[in-house]
Amino acid sequence: MVAHMNAEALAKTIASGEAWYYSRSRRALWRKGESSGHVQRVLEMRVDCDQDAVWIKVEQAGAGACHTGRRTCFYRVVPLGQKGGVRLEFREQDRAFDPAAVYGGDKA
Amino acid sequence: MVAHMNAEALAKTIASGEAWYYSRSRRALWRKGESSGHVQRVLEMRVDCDQDAVWIKVEQAGAGACHTGRRTCFYRVVPLGQKGGVRLEFREQDRAFDPAAVYGGDKA
Repeated sequence: MVAHMNAEALAKTIASGEAWYYSRSRRALWRKGESSGHVQRVLEMRVDCDQDAVWIKVEQAGAGACHTGRRTCFYRVVPLGQKGGVRLEFREQDRAFDPAAVYGGDKA
Repeated sequence: MVAHMNAEALAKTIASGEAWYYSRSRRALWRKGESSGHVQRVLEMRVDCDQDAVWIKVEQAGAGACHTGRRTCFYRVVPLGQKGGVRLEFREQDRAFDPAAVYGGDKA
């Protein structure tokens, strides 16, 4: 998954060892797993050369990280060698959990 | 590495199978490896659930992807469990290539 961290989310992640993010649309800090229980324990955090991106390796609680119920958010392949529109190809299409049951809404 | 793609960079990457990015600071499209020769042949491209991020797996020409001369841009670890300032720890500190020789400037 890819998500945004602001300074507070970054500080909380470093201090707690659990992933915190910042939702720019909701303008709110969020702890991953807050509603789903799918918390992320950070095993390693790295920062990139110009220090505007962090990469974290996590131990993912629950069956997946994606709000659609998949293990990963990157469950679709973009076929290469094409010009114009492309048709995405599903990988790992099966849902690892039921997002409606976990989040209590229709987030799929 | 993490870099930005605009619509044109994304379309060129899909069509050519080589990584193109867009520099927001320089406001210019760039083909990875244009000056360094360190081109990236895309082996697989995936898009995330809300379709605002792509993940690409590449075959990296040359010794590394990072402009500092490292294999990866993520060569420093952020230690966890600390509050306040942290001291980054180097991993893969050795440079895989000399950036001054490759880029002809001081980009380290």
